[in-house]
Amino acid sequence: MLVNAPSMEELVEALRCLPGVGKRSAERMALHLLSAPAEEAQRLSEAITTARARIRTCSICCDLTEADPCAVCSSGRRDRGVICVVERPAGTIAIERGGGFQGLYHVLHGALNPLEGAGPDELTVNRLMARVDKGDVREVIVATNATAEGEATALYLSRQLGTKGVAVSRIAHGVPMGGGLEYADDATLSHALEGRVRL
Amino acid sequence: MLVNAPSMEELVEALRCLPGVGKRSAERMALHLLSAPAEEAQRLSEAITTARARIRTCSICCDLTEADPCAVCSSGRRDRGVICVVERPAGTIAIERGGGFQGLYHVLHGALNPLEGAGPDELTVNRLMARVDKGDVREVIVATNATAEGEATALYLSRQLGTKGVAVSRIAHGVPMGGGLEYADDATLSHALEGRVRL
Repeated sequence: MLVNAPSMEELVEALRCLPGVGKRSAERMALHLLSAPAEEAQRLSEAITTARARIRTCSICCDLTEADPCAVCSSGRRDRGVICVVERPAGTIAIERGGGFQGLYHVLHGALNPLEGAGPDELTVNRLMARVDKGDVREVIVATNATAEGEATALYLSRQLGTKGVAVSRIAHGVPMGGGLEYADDATLSHALEGRVRL
Repeated sequence: MLVNAPSMEELVEALRCLPGVGKRSAERMALHLLSAPAEEAQRLSEAITTARARIRTCSICCDLTEADPCAVCSSGRRDRGVICVVERPAGTIAIERGGGFQGLYHVLHGALNPLEGAGPDELTVNRLMARVDKGDVREVIVATNATAEGEATALYLSRQLGTKGVAVSRIAHGVPMGGGLEYADDATLSHALEGRVRL
């Protein structure tokens, strides 16, 4: 019986820190890791250590990467005049999956959140400004999240960048493709109406 | 950009082996492990290794445990005349959570499944028979899952135990407590009707 087994409890607690994992899922995962072949558990343990050791932030765009500069920053086929600013590395992965964006990225590693003490200095804003100051950039697309923090960050960036002679744009917010009006929430619908474009 | 980073891909693949984790969840977990403080990632990696090193199977009931014999088998307050047989360690945790069972357990570590080559020798059936042969056991409660494999295992065990002079019972299957009839599936309902008890 695993009741009161400290190493089981510690494993469950450690798994609960993962996003989207509650107590029951963590327990199921822990039991799987204990019942699976030893190599499978070892593989996960080592994959975590190896990834943490090898992956760093890109010295140009601040995204996570194994090679520095990262694959996008060092690519010869990207439009170096456009920078898309996202809050987190997950954002660049999502946009790359779409496949339509050919510019570069900048990862802020967060958003402005005065209540939690996250001001511009906690983010990589200064490094974004330095990239823009170098002069190759025509447009900065702000793709921070559609949350209060993301909107505040977008407003802050547009003011900071406004003096530098680059175009600053914000990604469109509205009804998702394939989504019926009846499934969209009120805030999305009102954004979609405000942001209407002429046909 | 994490595209083509081998250590990220390996981490995602290793996380996908966990139950209930698909590609997107694994990616979200991997990004969390890479962005979180180094100690948090290290904690999970070490918790896996430590739990695998410390947790073994109980020499009596075959459940997972840190101490051998396990807390239930070595407790002086359990009814040693009743053994509840479950397929997996998750079963004993679920029944202990209920708190109403005062007997001992036996974990089979699987169920009969001829198609996948799991016969009685792959399970801990022999050790269950040896426990019963020692003579203290009055009743064996078969709590294998309500699946084809679990039912086949229950039938097999009842035949094997039938010659040994112990009572063999099967846990009841029917409509879950708190569940309306309209939410129960056909098989559950027909089981509930067949297994009706007089009031």
